Amino acid sequence: MNQFMNANFMLYNDCAQHLYHEYAKNLPIIDYHCHIDPQQILVNSSFSNLTQLWLAGDHYKWRAMRSCGVEEKYITGNATDYDKFLAWATIIPQLIGNPLYHWTHLELQRYFNIMQPLNADSAPFIWQQANQLLLKGELTVNVILQRSQVELICTTDDPCDSLFAHQQLVNSSCPSKVLPSFRPDRALDISNHDYVKWLTKLSQITHLSIKTYSDLLQALEQRLDYFQLIGCKVADHGLNYIPFAPCTDSQAENIFAQALAKQPLTELAENQFRAHLLIWLAKQYAKRDWSMQLHCNVLRNLNQQKYLELGADRGFDSINDSLIAKPLAQLLNAMNQQQLPRTILYSLNPRDNYTLATIMGSFQTSEAKGKLQLGAAWWFNDQRDGIEEHLRSLANLGALGTFVGMLTDSRSFLSYTRHEYFRRILCNLIGSWVEKGEYPADLNNLHQLISNLCYYNTKTYFKFGD
Amino acid sequence: MNQFMNANFMLYNDCAQHLYHEYAKNLPIIDYHCHIDPQQILVNSSFSNLTQLWLAGDHYKWRAMRSCGVEEKYITGNATDYDKFLAWATIIPQLIGNPLYHWTHLELQRYFNIMQPLNADSAPFIWQQANQLLLKGELTVNVILQRSQVELICTTDDPCDSLFAHQQLVNSSCPSKVLPSFRPDRALDISNHDYVKWLTKLSQITHLSIKTYSDLLQALEQRLDYFQLIGCKVADHGLNYIPFAPCTDSQAENIFAQALAKQPLTELAENQFRAHLLIWLAKQYAKRDWSMQLHCNVLRNLNQQKYLELGADRGFDSINDSLIAKPLAQLLNAMNQQQLPRTILYSLNPRDNYTLATIMGSFQTSEAKGKLQLGAAWWFNDQRDGIEEHLRSLANLGALGTFVGMLTDSRSFLSYTRHEYFRRILCNLIGSWVEKGEYPADLNNLHQLISNLCYYNTKTYFKFGD
Amino acid sequence: MNQFMNANFMLYNDCAQHLYHEYAKNLPIIDYHCHIDPQQILVNSSFSNLTQLWLAGDHYKWRAMRSCGVEEKYITGNATDYDKFLAWATIIPQLIGNPLYHWTHLELQRYFNIMQPLNADSAPFIWQQANQLLLKGELTVNVILQRSQVELICTTDDPCDSLFAHQQLVNSSCPSKVLPSFRPDRALDISNHDYVKWLTKLSQITHLSIKTYSDLLQALEQRLDYFQLIGCKVADHGLNYIPFAPCTDSQAENIFAQALAKQPLTELAENQFRAHLLIWLAKQYAKRDWSMQLHCNVLRNLNQQKYLELGADRGFDSINDSLIAKPLAQLLNAMNQQQLPRTILYSLNPRDNYTLATIMGSFQTSEAKGKLQLGAAWWFNDQRDGIEEHLRSLANLGALGTFVGMLTDSRSFLSYTRHEYFRRILCNLIGSWVEKGEYPADLNNLHQLISNLCYYNTKTYFKFGD
Repeated sequence: MNQFMNANFMLYNDCAQHLYHEYAKNLPIIDYHCHIDPQQILVNSSFSNLTQLWLAGDHYKWRAMRSCGVEEKYITGNATDYDKFLAWATIIPQLIGNPLYHWTHLELQRYFNIMQPLNADSAPFIWQQANQLLLKGELTVNVILQRSQVELICTTDDPCDSLFAHQQLVNSSCPSKVLPSFRPDRALDISNHDYVKWLTKLSQITHLSIKTYSDLLQALEQRLDYFQLIGCKVADHGLNYIPFAPCTDSQAENIFAQALAKQPLTELAENQFRAHLLIWLAKQYAKRDWSMQLHCNVLRNLNQQKYLELGADRGFDSINDSLIAKPLAQLLNAMNQQQLPRTILYSLNPRDNYTLATIMGSFQTSEAKGKLQLGAAWWFNDQRDGIEEHLRSLANLGALGTFVGMLTDSRSFLSYTRHEYFRRILCNLIGSWVEKGEYPADLNNLHQLISNLCYYNTKTYFKFGD
Repeated sequence: MNQFMNANFMLYNDCAQHLYHEYAKNLPIIDYHCHIDPQQILVNSSFSNLTQLWLAGDHYKWRAMRSCGVEEKYITGNATDYDKFLAWATIIPQLIGNPLYHWTHLELQRYFNIMQPLNADSAPFIWQQANQLLLKGELTVNVILQRSQVELICTTDDPCDSLFAHQQLVNSSCPSKVLPSFRPDRALDISNHDYVKWLTKLSQITHLSIKTYSDLLQALEQRLDYFQLIGCKVADHGLNYIPFAPCTDSQAENIFAQALAKQPLTELAENQFRAHLLIWLAKQYAKRDWSMQLHCNVLRNLNQQKYLELGADRGFDSINDSLIAKPLAQLLNAMNQQQLPRTILYSLNPRDNYTLATIMGSFQTSEAKGKLQLGAAWWFNDQRDGIEEHLRSLANLGALGTFVGMLTDSRSFLSYTRHEYFRRILCNLIGSWVEKGEYPADLNNLHQLISNLCYYNTKTYFKFGD
Repeated sequence: MNQFMNANFMLYNDCAQHLYHEYAKNLPIIDYHCHIDPQQILVNSSFSNLTQLWLAGDHYKWRAMRSCGVEEKYITGNATDYDKFLAWATIIPQLIGNPLYHWTHLELQRYFNIMQPLNADSAPFIWQQANQLLLKGELTVNVILQRSQVELICTTDDPCDSLFAHQQLVNSSCPSKVLPSFRPDRALDISNHDYVKWLTKLSQITHLSIKTYSDLLQALEQRLDYFQLIGCKVADHGLNYIPFAPCTDSQAENIFAQALAKQPLTELAENQFRAHLLIWLAKQYAKRDWSMQLHCNVLRNLNQQKYLELGADRGFDSINDSLIAKPLAQLLNAMNQQQLPRTILYSLNPRDNYTLATIMGSFQTSEAKGKLQLGAAWWFNDQRDGIEEHLRSLANLGALGTFVGMLTDSRSFLSYTRHEYFRRILCNLIGSWVEKGEYPADLNNLHQLISNLCYYNTKTYFKFGD
């Protein structure tokens, strides 16, 4: 029996242990997609206690607590920080097999040097130990980034964002480079009741009047150029489903005009507009040599009551099961006929892995090694089975050696252990193949392969070294 | 090499063996969902031979026999009981990897103390041995229930059922408590040509005239109260797909009137009616503190020729692949806006596991530990891979520790070995995590966890102890 | 650590090694579905170098090269054969976990006795070694077939094909029997702009005028009889999705007339026509005691630009995700009401495995052992995980012992190693069950089981021995 989460956690063969400890462990981290607030980096936030650090904004943990029947006052309510922590600690043993179980202990081990399992009994001691460290100011954002070897972070930013924090960060003491990502979900969300409000914001920041679709494109172009100036190299889209319907320029103009006139749009019109704008944006990204991320098959804010009480991103989202093959093939083909940037495809529904991996294979070219990518196991799939299934899907259907690797997608500064989690799972899988004789035990080649998958492919693909 | 299906069958690590033999094996069984005929319990049925016990009503076995090319006369036809048994025994070796293979041998081992593999050669001897026991009357329903430690059974009952057997059973020698479940599929099946016929039955048993939708609700309410009186604590719905469309009370009235007038209903109208009635029923269940089971994605009676010959539930059903995410999210949200009972979600399509597990996560509250549940691997999925995938899905996306555990869903009295099958697989999975160091080897905690998953969670969740 | 791809490659337990080396390895191959050009067999083609043999027509390899960023000139372009080979060899290490990685080395080992891993370094030596053998003429088509113990091949042929090569092959030196398969995709593809052109071809070869749907059926019947005469025993359909809509004979006539008149067809009309013709064809196959293969859920030629440049079957296809349960159940039921032949169901989307396996279970009869079959892991799924998942799906939901086994679906003569790949995975899976005590270690029974799954079931099912 192995010791609880020791140095060889998740490394279940000799080769895996070699690959991880010798090649993977000490590589820097490039976190090319996350939801961290750059302002928190700029001010080098510190945290007064574990609850502030762990439970203040993490909807993964909130969901888990609700699943275990914890009252909302201990989750997002007004219980004391200690009582919230205790509620969290108490349910931990029930999260057996959940990634939160492993992440929690990896974070305690790596950042607090606490090796014992968290539960109701150990909670008081761990609370005290961890808070001591936090109170000494030994775990500020900068310290975490440095100790985690975070070389680069891409945040997620609305086109209307001033990117003020990003600008300031260039000359700050932050040990990591912090770049923005361009996430124009609001620009595409034409039937949202807030659409015009968002256009007004865009108008204000660009000093352009937005009366027509062409105006919108002009304003977006200005913001694209601005993001480019601040160092942006990647765009990102959250798509609940994949919209596609053929749409001429004048149709797009008309639909936009309808929306401004507050006329209701048909589903077809919405899809036409979204597809048209996505194709236009893809071309803009390609022109600027950016990469594009497409995230699909999410259902958001399922629980209306809780949405009204607590707002968005509070742990009330789910996997969607919309059909993606045909519309995605058509969308990518339409982009490809204009200009298709390097593109990463994510679906929240893991049953789409094989579909995505074969669709992307139909648009590969020599413009990049793995120009189209099967995005890393995302959100609900970012656990051992999900990560392994993603790696296997890509290996079976594409070229695993070209994969751009892991990201956190996180709002928390302790989430860099997810890179460790990923690297362990990756080394374990590849190690098991080598041990079985399914891949040559050529250490030079393995060194290169593992280094590429943990670090170098990312740097090259996104052109972060340029 | 392990011996064939010995004491450590499916227990492939030391911890698993400890968990199963020390904690799981001897816990009582609560079979909260099955299709056993309560009349058979009441009369304490006995069986004249293995064919009567095994093959008289088990459409799982019939399907398997047809798959192997066995003639219908040896399945549902007029061959002798011995020839039917021999036909079954002969195909057994071809069912390698099928749960029927394992269940068959578990049943021979546990109830007949026969340890050798069944096949054409061993059939005559096994027939003789088993029948000897049966003829001695040593394996009546009561004996089986007692030896299987069945504490409680929930049958599946139409609202029109008199529940006579359940009433009688209270004062019988039956060693298990037998409660009804409320299964109003017929009430929802508004476009069935037999709908009015069923309403007539409902009218008769309630002594109420049913002319309007309100009348229907009143009659159902009477039956709900009656089921409650007899001890019912759980409702159950078989939904081929998930119906949802917004529907006002007066729309529901109109649709019901149309149906009574034998006017054809649009698909939309049908969905509106079903959704409206489901939401109303959910509220009724919540009021009575019952739990609700929703089963979806089944296709029934695919083979019309065989349906006409043999009727329903004869082994001609399949998995459906309808899209469930959006309608289910909307249905649960609508229920939640009124009153959502403790709810268990099952899909016959295992590719829905991740969707279900994340949708349910969006409606959890402190009303119960795991108020919404990912239902145990159901029907075609009730095999090692299916059970393990269910447990892993729940662990990855929810809180495995809150799971209410196994049920048989069976028509046969020997199926209690499926609880053993489940417990072995569960202990093996958790044991493997402990052995690898992914979960602490804390025996007190493991004892509690295993006991909860095999017995106590069920008792608490359904309030069977109340 | 095992040696790289040694004699026990993929055989990870003692029983597996016994099953493979003693029972499976030396059985002949019946390749009941492939895309080999019979003309190449007739002329006993030889190959001037490895590129000609490996890269001239293999869109699997082309896709992999594009995924790794190789320029098109090294793929389908005018680079030299050596440079193409070198480009292929160079990306090989990135294909870790891909079946191409294993197939490539199995082919080097079995046909060229080259045991070292292919990569940029070893490429020059391997090129020289392999070509030496090829130049000596020691690896002609006939030699490959003989050494691979290929007893029988079914090619894939349009109804308009003259089957000239097949006729000639009867009296040739070819060591394998070569039979045609009837693949009338063009007959069903009523909205294709080339449909009338194809009808003209059919008209020419049958000397029948085709003005009506009845004419079409008559012409097809003539070709069915002709194929039968040449020894055809199997039909095959490539269906992107499963079409079903009820359709009378006169509706089918009308739709056909519309198509001839170049009037656009509704989606419904197309589905009606396809379903009607499929049902008619199924009856024809059943009458002739043929088997029918249905392949579904493919998207073809996604990348229009590449389709215009390079044509079809160049590596720009993908998995489709259309819903199949309901239409497939209806189609099979409609066929069953007339005459349903022995039928093999394939979906390119592995998430359909469970749906297919349960639908097929609803149409089994005593006409054959496994009358309906879950087709072997197909195309993108023909890799270790895909094969294992297929075998497990079938075992879990049907009767694995009745499976008709492996096919290559290939255009290449070296692909017979895929049968070896399959047999190793099969023996490993079954061996692991025996080792664990989940299936009896009865060597006689295991010998029979393995022999059936690798060879005899195929021969019996397709009636190739008749």
